Amino acid sequence: MEVFAVEGLPEVRPGDDVAELVVERTALRDGDVICVASTIVSKANGRQASLSSYEPSEQAVRIAESIEAVAGEEKDPRLAQAIIEECEEVLVEAPFVLGVTQFGHITVNAGIDRSNVPDADLLLLPEDPAADAEAIRAGIRERTGVAPAVIVTDTSGRPFRLGQRGVALGWAGLPASRDWRGERDREGRELEATVQAVVDELAAAANLVTGEGDGGTPVAVVRDFEFGDHAASEQLFRDPEKDIVRQALREWSHARD
Amino acid sequence: MEVFAVEGLPEVRPGDDVAELVVERTALRDGDVICVASTIVSKANGRQASLSSYEPSEQAVRIAESIEAVAGEEKDPRLAQAIIEECEEVLVEAPFVLGVTQFGHITVNAGIDRSNVPDADLLLLPEDPAADAEAIRAGIRERTGVAPAVIVTDTSGRPFRLGQRGVALGWAGLPASRDWRGERDREGRELEATVQAVVDELAAAANLVTGEGDGGTPVAVVRDFEFGDHAASEQLFRDPEKDIVRQALREWSHARD
Ligand SMILES: Nc1nc2c(ncn2[C@@H]2O[C@H](COP(=O)(O)OP(=O)(O)O)[C@@H](O)[C@H]2O)c(=O)[nH]1
Ligand SMILES: Nc1nc2c(ncn2[C@@H]2O[C@H](COP(=O)(O)OP(=O)(O)O)[C@@H](O)[C@H]2O)c(=O)[nH]1
Ligand SMILES: [Mn+2]
Ligand SMILES: [Mn+2]
Ligand SMILES: [Mn+2]
Ligand SMILES: [Mn+2]
Repeated sequence: MEVFAVEGLPEVRPGDDVAELVVERTALRDGDVICVASTIVSKANGRQASLSSYEPSEQAVRIAESIEAVAGEEKDPRLAQAIIEECEEVLVEAPFVLGVTQFGHITVNAGIDRSNVPDADLLLLPEDPAADAEAIRAGIRERTGVAPAVIVTDTSGRPFRLGQRGVALGWAGLPASRDWRGERDREGRELEATVQAVVDELAAAANLVTGEGDGGTPVAVVRDFEFGDHAASEQLFRDPEKDIVRQALREWSHARD
Repeated sequence: MEVFAVEGLPEVRPGDDVAELVVERTALRDGDVICVASTIVSKANGRQASLSSYEPSEQAVRIAESIEAVAGEEKDPRLAQAIIEECEEVLVEAPFVLGVTQFGHITVNAGIDRSNVPDADLLLLPEDPAADAEAIRAGIRERTGVAPAVIVTDTSGRPFRLGQRGVALGWAGLPASRDWRGERDREGRELEATVQAVVDELAAAANLVTGEGDGGTPVAVVRDFEFGDHAASEQLFRDPEKDIVRQALREWSHARD
């Protein structure tokens, strides 16, 4: 399996066609998995936003104040408002805002970026990354006849472990996971580690070559990845009713009110 | 960057030398990152265990009973005892046991495997995966003169997102993370996504080629990964006092008592 960055991509602007930018710069093959950093999908979709367009609600003011009190960090209540508007549910208000985006991804600050964003204060995550992945895939197929898998990725933190890593926000042309249930191990015993979230593993691999800085490489190609002969699973985000950690965080937030 | 599995490894037994098994089957280069599934490190270290050697404590009996009551799943109290003994702290007792291993990794069932374990009921995680990574690295260097980086990995679940993915338990010869703090983005602005947990991203990439089943490929080589000119960070597991999710889970468990 090979992982390489697409070189020479320009600064992406509202209205740009990501599929076109990619196919102009690299020869794709069937079976390739194209990992596209959400930052350029957001830029192409016009998800830039200015702080002055947000009117802080009571909750936003409270969030900004608690973060200042708890973390000693200045938080702009307009940024808090932007985060709230991107979230279906806020799970933790302080010492940082952890929420569920409208498309089901749980992350800090609703994944709003302030890095690599020219001419705007904020860059919001794509509204529907799965639809974006599908559109990029269709755009590549139209132009080249090749239909690679596409993953829209972000760099995101996680509980328990320090640091961020690449994750999948939306995908098309491959399943979210290999489902090993019913398969056997080397001893003929049914498998326990049952569902392998390959889209997240692919996003993580891609992130190693895209990086976080001024590299200018928001697109990585994974070549010769074999999904293999496995059952597939499509769901990546936990069902809220079965997510113990989400429930614990809800109660914990309330405990601080 | 290239990721490939080492082919032809035998069933690993107590006392086997993992470094020797690997160098006999593949030509390594400086700069390679060797990702070794913890399962074979545990096997080589003699971490097989039998259920009959565990005497269930009161807590183990309570855990088995609560899991049966809450999840409707039969749990052997001796397995619960094994999990407790591997954990420095149990965070959640039911519907599944989530705990912190002695070396700081938070996972379900203390990462004890019942798959791919011949002639034993259980396979415990390595006691000190960082030391194992260092020893494998030294063993490879002794035999070949090449000193690759080594990561001992496991497949593990995570909050919020379904499915498991490869993670690093211990590593040697490379830092845990790229620390981007102080670096600049494309606009000259200081970076926000500051610490990139590359050992986890490498473990995830490796897991795509090792798989979870009867593939017989516990070792993957990542070739031509460039850490790059970045500051480094060594810590991968969150400081308990700063880990909000861990705190919330502690309180939540207590709430059920
Ligand atoms: N060519 C190009 N590279 C960009 C652009 N925006 C970000 N990047 C690069 O894409 C990579 C990932 O950027 P990052 O801000 O971490 O994106 P995110 O992970 O989706 O939030 C880095 O190498 C950036 O330099 C852009 O508009 N054009
Ligand atoms: N050759 C060989 N392969 C093994 C052995 N044990 C496990 N494997 C393979 O190693 C890979 C990872 O196994 P898994 O049980 O998921 O390990 P874990 O992720 O460390 O828990 C699979 O391809 C297994 O078939 C062994 O002793 N010898
Ligand atoms: Mn981002
Ligand atoms: Mn990033
Ligand atoms: Mn395991
Ligand atoms: Mn595994």
